[in-house]
Order: sequence, then structure tokens, then C-alpha cells
Amino acid sequence: MSTAQPSPSGLVTLLTDFGETDGYVGAMKGVMLRVDARVRPVDVAHDVPAQAIRHGGLALRGAAPYFPAGTVHLGVVDPGVGTERDPVVLIAGEHVFVGPDNGLFDAAARALGGIHGARRIERHPWLPEGDAISSTFHGRDVFAPTAAALAAGRLQLDAVGEPIEPVRMDLPEPAPREDGSIEAPVATVDRFGNLITALDERLVRSRRPTVVRLPDGTEVPVRRTYGDVEPGEALALVGSGGLLEVAVRDGSAAERFGLGPDARVVVP
Amino acid sequence: MSTAQPSPSGLVTLLTDFGETDGYVGAMKGVMLRVDARVRPVDVAHDVPAQAIRHGGLALRGAAPYFPAGTVHLGVVDPGVGTERDPVVLIAGEHVFVGPDNGLFDAAARALGGIHGARRIERHPWLPEGDAISSTFHGRDVFAPTAAALAAGRLQLDAVGEPIEPVRMDLPEPAPREDGSIEAPVATVDRFGNLITALDERLVRSRRPTVVRLPDGTEVPVRRTYGDVEPGEALALVGSGGLLEVAVRDGSAAERFGLGPDARVVVP
Amino acid sequence: MSTAQPSPSGLVTLLTDFGETDGYVGAMKGVMLRVDARVRPVDVAHDVPAQAIRHGGLALRGAAPYFPAGTVHLGVVDPGVGTERDPVVLIAGEHVFVGPDNGLFDAAARALGGIHGARRIERHPWLPEGDAISSTFHGRDVFAPTAAALAAGRLQLDAVGEPIEPVRMDLPEPAPREDGSIEAPVATVDRFGNLITALDERLVRSRRPTVVRLPDGTEVPVRRTYGDVEPGEALALVGSGGLLEVAVRDGSAAERFGLGPDARVVVP
Repeated sequence: MSTAQPSPSGLVTLLTDFGETDGYVGAMKGVMLRVDARVRPVDVAHDVPAQAIRHGGLALRGAAPYFPAGTVHLGVVDPGVGTERDPVVLIAGEHVFVGPDNGLFDAAARALGGIHGARRIERHPWLPEGDAISSTFHGRDVFAPTAAALAAGRLQLDAVGEPIEPVRMDLPEPAPREDGSIEAPVATVDRFGNLITALDERLVRSRRPTVVRLPDGTEVPVRRTYGDVEPGEALALVGSGGLLEVAVRDGSAAERFGLGPDARVVVP
Repeated sequence: MSTAQPSPSGLVTLLTDFGETDGYVGAMKGVMLRVDARVRPVDVAHDVPAQAIRHGGLALRGAAPYFPAGTVHLGVVDPGVGTERDPVVLIAGEHVFVGPDNGLFDAAARALGGIHGARRIERHPWLPEGDAISSTFHGRDVFAPTAAALAAGRLQLDAVGEPIEPVRMDLPEPAPREDGSIEAPVATVDRFGNLITALDERLVRSRRPTVVRLPDGTEVPVRRTYGDVEPGEALALVGSGGLLEVAVRDGSAAERFGLGPDARVVVP
Repeated sequence: MSTAQPSPSGLVTLLTDFGETDGYVGAMKGVMLRVDARVRPVDVAHDVPAQAIRHGGLALRGAAPYFPAGTVHLGVVDPGVGTERDPVVLIAGEHVFVGPDNGLFDAAARALGGIHGARRIERHPWLPEGDAISSTFHGRDVFAPTAAALAAGRLQLDAVGEPIEPVRMDLPEPAPREDGSIEAPVATVDRFGNLITALDERLVRSRRPTVVRLPDGTEVPVRRTYGDVEPGEALALVGSGGLLEVAVRDGSAAERFGLGPDARVVVP
């Protein structure tokens, strides 16, 4: 795998569910800058809903592929910290992912062509001594030093640990129905209340639906963009992440229809 | 206009209503760093209330003028994305603004002496090919590459597009009343619940009011700073942005008086 | 004190209660970059609860010590702005703190071995002229230029102002009880609803408690990490900051038990 290690860019993106009220994100940045002051931490998002792996994974999918080759993506949404879940380094395309092995990086890695290298983080020179690794904050003690050392070119992938088979993300899958339509589960809700389904634009484009149907029977027209309906009206569209979304122009579809993750939208 | 283009500083500030839960802000940073890794993204604020152009514009007014000459300010509060509203580059003082042409940059530009150049973003080498421009996320596909290329000195203003007449911000204006007093509309409410009016300090200083009057008749004393009243007491003062504010020391004036944008404060 | 001034790193961390909706944080970054464009602002947290000095101080304690020597920590949780409270520069270990003298930096400084230098910010060449210093936003007009000039090596500590005796943080202290147990006050609640007490791990380890008792009599088992109990179960543990915490695995202890700051946990 070492031959496939992307050239270090010095860039480390950060996505966590640590919020903006405590010192957790700062501690990770400090650790990274102490490994090498040339490392450049870049915030992606820290208000991922607490322990929402799927939401965090889809946020990463929307951001990571746009960064330069050699970027290290540090992600910490980690309900299993201190349990048997592995700490991991993954390679996908020219990108590196560092964090808990719980599926968090799966959607982003697939958008980058799939994982072609995975190592368990075991012992390497940039980790604190065993006793100094907290059992509740691997973001600071395990992931941050590993990410920074990789981004700075101070650590080779081979030296991180043994290859492992990474965990996949538990994403709901679109399902065909008896009448030929497809049931598209809502995977997550974004800040604007858009209901983002797991249905990929290729499937949408091949079916060319003119409406989608919500659980309560409401039919929502499929349009190209928000401006194609009047303010306050609902529409379905292929969003910027290439997934089918249900939205309300200048409003929140999640609120309007009382829907959230795992609700099902029917595409004829 | 090209002779007036500020020297590139590499700095790009970001102000959006994208929140901190999704990948949208990260995608923009990634795009910018891919244009030129020397670009330095600097977060201003991402929790601007959704689609609140006026609030975002006043936040930019409070921040942009303090940055070095040559800074590019990327702002995205963009309810009209995908409609006929133009994407725009504006020049004010030694600063550059990139985003939707919806008035978002108007207050900041006026604080910098006014707009002296405006170009519609049309076709330039740093934009994705036409089909690859999403109809819902111009922040990522249009504004971020334009801002980064300008900040890195890789794009000349002349090459961005044709000159246009920019949209003005729809700000409520202070209005004289029959009895000689002035009605100062609340333009926005900040994080601390301060009611920030559209009344400029020059008008305040020329009138030297000792109290202002709220819609319910309450008279609030005009003071220099919070410490001039007791904790929990209300006051009016010229805030750090040079606008008349109504505040409650160690509390929220918005909550105390149940007031928000467009409420009217009377200054005798 | 000047001989003890840490070598400048160019790094300035920012912790405030300014939130992410307004331009206040951006204004401070702009001022710093105008002092010297090589300064690197690093966000720690901006959603510290409004005017919550203790919460902000504990967040800083969790972050500051992990940064490289020579880092300047700019902290603004400042209910006393515009009153008689002093603006201050403190030195602890190889770190510099800049902000209001209200105890905000006390816990972090103690974690770094204690304050060994304190200067009142008086007149120095990087401050605006007297009239241009706002009475409500010292973060922008006093603290940011001082922090940046120190971080860039453009200002010597001696030149900041006269030595002063800094204010201590008003932290609740653990108290021994008649029956030999200790009452550990909750100092703050973090984003995950963990109840973080003021009880240091050394005291916990010396007593080796197997349970702690909440105000309603509930006994909670002491464990090493979240994964040692089932999802939804409560536990007490030494958290990543070295303080005794009460937590609920995959949940919020603050919500479950209806407890917050100043609640008292009994450690047998």
C-alpha cells in the first residue's frame, strides 16, 4: 500500500460531532500543530448531530472529494470510543481518511472510487505512550497525531499498523416496489430542512419522473432548481451531492411534511 | 476596472447560512484549495439565519473592513440560487466581494467607501464546464473558484465578465416624525439579543438623546457602555459597528422586550 | 518577565462567546491579519454560552495545553467589557493568554503550571488611538491587535503595560463531608450532556470509588470508558480532561438526571 500513499499536502480537514462550545476541537488542532506546525487544519463541520455516523458520512461525501489530492480527512463521530471498534486509516483515490472504523468514511470513499487501502492504527512514533491515551478521546490522542503525521509526510502508511477490512456504512438502500416504482429512503436532513434521499441521480435521470410521492400521498413536482417553483412551494430535485432531494423553496421540507431520516419517498 | 484591482492577498473570508452540520462549507474550501493551495480560507460566520440577506450583510459590514487590503470576501446567503439573480464580483475600497448579486455586500461596501467596480461572473477558466455547474450550489461551483482564483492572482477582473449595476440591499431607513423625533427601525438582532438599529452614530451624536423610546412606551437611557447600568438593566448605546443599539446588560433585549427586526425605536 | 517571553509561533487560538451568526469573530481575525498577514488564527470554540466565564475557562483548559510552545490564546468571554475590569496578557508555561482579566484563563494556566507573568494592557503601538477603541468590543480593538503583535514577534511583553495580579476563576471546590466522602460540584456540562465535576483524577484514583451518588440518591457505577456499560446506561469516569464526569452512554446525563452546573455528586 505504501506505493499508493498520496503525496502529503499538509492539509487536514476536520469533521466532528464535538460542537462549538467545548475545547475538544481545539485540542485536536493543537496536537496536530505540535506534530508539525506546517500542518493546516481546515474545518468542515463540527455540529454534526451527536453520534450521527450516517449524517456525518454524508456531509464528508459532500466535501472531501473537492479537496486537493493528498488531503487527510480527520473525522470523529465515534459512539464506540473506548470499545472494540478499531481506529483506522483508509485510502480512497488520492485522499486519506483517519478516524474510527465505523462506516463514517464509507460514502465519501465510494464517491472517490472506493477504498484501496486500510490499516488499523496500532503503534507508531507519533502516538502518546499507552497510558497517556485517553479511553474517551481518541480524536485527540490517536486520530489527530496520526492525521498530522501523515499530512506532514512524517509517517508512512506501512508504519501505521496492519491491513484490515473496513466497516461499511449502514445506509438505507432504495428498493424497487411491485408496481415498478422505487422507494427512496431519506438518508438525512440538511440545515435547510431538505430531505436528502439515498437515490442517486443516475437512477433519477433514467426514470425521468415528473413527480415523487410522499408517505401521506402528497405529490411533489420534480424540477431542476428551487427557482422553478414559487416561494413556499415544494419540489423534488437532484441536489448538489447528486442525490434526489425533497425541498421547499425558502422553507423547510422536513418541517412542512413532518418527515426525517428513514421516511420513504416513492419515485414512479 | 482592472487598474483598480486590489493586489491579491491570498485571503478569502467565508460568510454563509450553510450552518455547521453539513459538508457545504467544506466543499467550498476544498474547491478553493484546489485552485491554489496557497489560498487561505478564513471563516467569518456560517450560522447566519437561513436566507437572511440583511442579517448576513450587516455581519459582513462588521467584519470585512477590518481585513487587509486585497482580501476577497466570499458570501453566500442565496435564496435565489438557480433563478435569474446574477453571480457577481464587486470591488469596494481595496476589498473584493464574490457571491450572489442580491444586496448581501451592499452594507459592507458602503462602509468601505462604496462599490467602484462590479462584474457579472460569466465564463472564465476556473469555472467548471457548463453541465458541471449545479443549479443549487453556486457557492461551490461558481463563487468558490472565482474567489480563489482572484485571491491567488490567477484571474483578472476583466476576465470575469461584463460590468453590471449591482443590486442594493433592502435596508429599512430611519424616518423623521412629525414631532421632530426619528424612528429608527431595528435592522437585526445579534447573538446577545442586542437590537441593532439602522441609525448611524453621526445622527445619534448630533441629537444627543438621553433616552430612546420602545414601541410599548418604555424609555431606555442612552449610555456609553454596558457597564454604565446595573446587570439586568436596559440601555441604548452606539455599538461597535457604529449603529444605535438597545441592549440589556448581561441579558437579551430581544427577549426582554419581545422585539426583533423591523420593530421601531423612537429617538427624540 | 521579558526573558520568559515564549518565542512567537505565529499561532493565535480564538475562543469566544460571540457565536457563529454575526461578524464579531471575523472582525478580530481581520484585525490580526492586518497586524501581520503571517499570523495564523485557529478557531477553538465560538459558541461558549453567552458570558459563561467558567464554561469558557474549562474549554480553554481542555485545548490550550495541547498547542505548540509560543501559541497565543485569545479568549473573549467578557461580561465586564467597558467596566473597570482590566485587559490583560498572562504567561503560563510556554503559552500566552490575551483577554479580559476575569478568571477566564485561570484553569488553563494552572494546567500549564501556573501564571508566571501578568501585564495590564495599557498603551502600545498596535492599539488604535484612544477614541477609536470601542467601549463594547475590546476583542476587536484591544485583544486582537495585542495577540497578533505578540504572536508575530512585533511586540515585547515589557511594552504591553505594568505587571498586575490577575483575577482567579470562581470555581466551585470539592468539599469533604462528615462521613469521609467528598462532595464534587458539577463545574460545567459539555456538548454531549456529560456532567463534568471539579474533582481531579488524582483524588479519584486515591479513593478508588466503585460508585458515585447523585443528588436524588441514584448510584452510578465508576468505569473506565463509555463502552464498559450498555447503551443508555449511566456511568462515572475520569474524562479526557482529567476530571470526574457523570455520563450516559450514547445519551445525555444532564437530561437524564435533570442536573447542571453546581449540582453536587458524592464520591464515597
